[in-house]
Amino acid sequence: MIDSLKTRRSIRKYADKPVGEDLLRRLLAVAERTQTMGNMQLYSVVVTRDKEMKQRLAPAHFNQPMVTQAPVVLTVCADFNRTVRWAEQRNAVPGYDNFLSFLNAATDALLFTQTFCNLAEAEGLGICYLGTTLYMPSQIIDVLQLPRLVMPVATLTVGWPDEHPEQTDRLPLDAVVHEEVYRDYSPADIDFYYKEKEALPENRRFVEINHKETLAQVFTDIRYNKKDNEAMSAGLLQALKQQGFLD
Amino acid sequence: MIDSLKTRRSIRKYADKPVGEDLLRRLLAVAERTQTMGNMQLYSVVVTRDKEMKQRLAPAHFNQPMVTQAPVVLTVCADFNRTVRWAEQRNAVPGYDNFLSFLNAATDALLFTQTFCNLAEAEGLGICYLGTTLYMPSQIIDVLQLPRLVMPVATLTVGWPDEHPEQTDRLPLDAVVHEEVYRDYSPADIDFYYKEKEALPENRRFVEINHKETLAQVFTDIRYNKKDNEAMSAGLLQALKQQGFLD
Repeated sequence: MIDSLKTRRSIRKYADKPVGEDLLRRLLAVAERTQTMGNMQLYSVVVTRDKEMKQRLAPAHFNQPMVTQAPVVLTVCADFNRTVRWAEQRNAVPGYDNFLSFLNAATDALLFTQTFCNLAEAEGLGICYLGTTLYMPSQIIDVLQLPRLVMPVATLTVGWPDEHPEQTDRLPLDAVVHEEVYRDYSPADIDFYYKEKEALPENRRFVEINHKETLAQVFTDIRYNKKDNEAMSAGLLQALKQQGFLD
Repeated sequence: MIDSLKTRRSIRKYADKPVGEDLLRRLLAVAERTQTMGNMQLYSVVVTRDKEMKQRLAPAHFNQPMVTQAPVVLTVCADFNRTVRWAEQRNAVPGYDNFLSFLNAATDALLFTQTFCNLAEAEGLGICYLGTTLYMPSQIIDVLQLPRLVMPVATLTVGWPDEHPEQTDRLPLDAVVHEEVYRDYSPADIDFYYKEKEALPENRRFVEINHKETLAQVFTDIRYNKKDNEAMSAGLLQALKQQGFLD
């Protein structure tokens, strides 16, 4: 697995070759071994293989082509519905319609998701993780018919790689590790840790074609800007309320 | 890795043997390959090895003995502080003091955490994931001196195993997988999926010693009850506000 991780890259183009049902189920079953809160397994996975369903999901992911091109799309959800149904059927009074319970379930869902990613990539599959799941969750909730106390938190497109992109850069380890207490970043630290990233030819090109002064401006003005983040935060909180996690 | 996952169990007792700095850094560096939003790496890890620091962290984790006994405690944080400092130093105006940005960073942090867990366990290390991190985050924020836009989301105790507990059960895969749309659980589904778990001798004993009628009541009345969840939800939202993610 170390080798597979060291050489991993997100894959956005897939060969015209199915992902076998047996393989998918085997990997999902092993991923179930991931630790989970109180062993409640507060997640569900919706598997999308149907072409029309992929087309219906695509707009929620800004119509990124992976969603319709990948043989399999997995939407992983924070799920307290199953546990609540179990409790109610067993004369127990659940109290999971609150924010902590959402984050507990989201945690379970994301840990499960990542184990699946590591397993799938070790098997040679290509994965793209779609962060867009949190952007317009209500569309996904509608399409996948998610009931109260179920909230989509991650989407993966899965298939056999049909591209071999360059690996993306990472910050030096010291940039993300703190010893004993968090030592905040001085201006010199920031310069040092971001130097290599900013010097990469692809990132310099990125700044140029976007007519920006700095790479950071590409992020703050274009890719992840304040206005969109605030609008989508409101939508996300609204969806959490709708799904019963902020009662 | 498949074998390591298939046989994994959480480890709460550790041998009196250090976890080498080189090994820890090597695993953290490989975990950095995990996919991350816009390649921003919205996380930080605080490494606790100091005995006094472990003692100060312990109360936030209900004084579970792993915290002081483990050679290493890792607190993984959703971190937009570093990215914001970079942006401000590069004449860019960040907009990440909102709820969506918190969830984006929490996602990055949790995916990174789980890759680390998979790697560490494949290396023979034992891990315990402490869900308590979300229960009283403000204590952890104080002890680790986390600045604005940094929020603890996961804690791992890490060491060489000194116990070999039984593996815990999991629900059948069909209980967590849905095809194309979420099919809600009928009473018969619930009975079927929870039958095995409820029949386990340790779970029957658990019901008995807690003087409850059903296993579900142990969860709803004792382990994760409504009153505590609601109080801790309020504290969690307060901490998110304090850290600048709900401005």
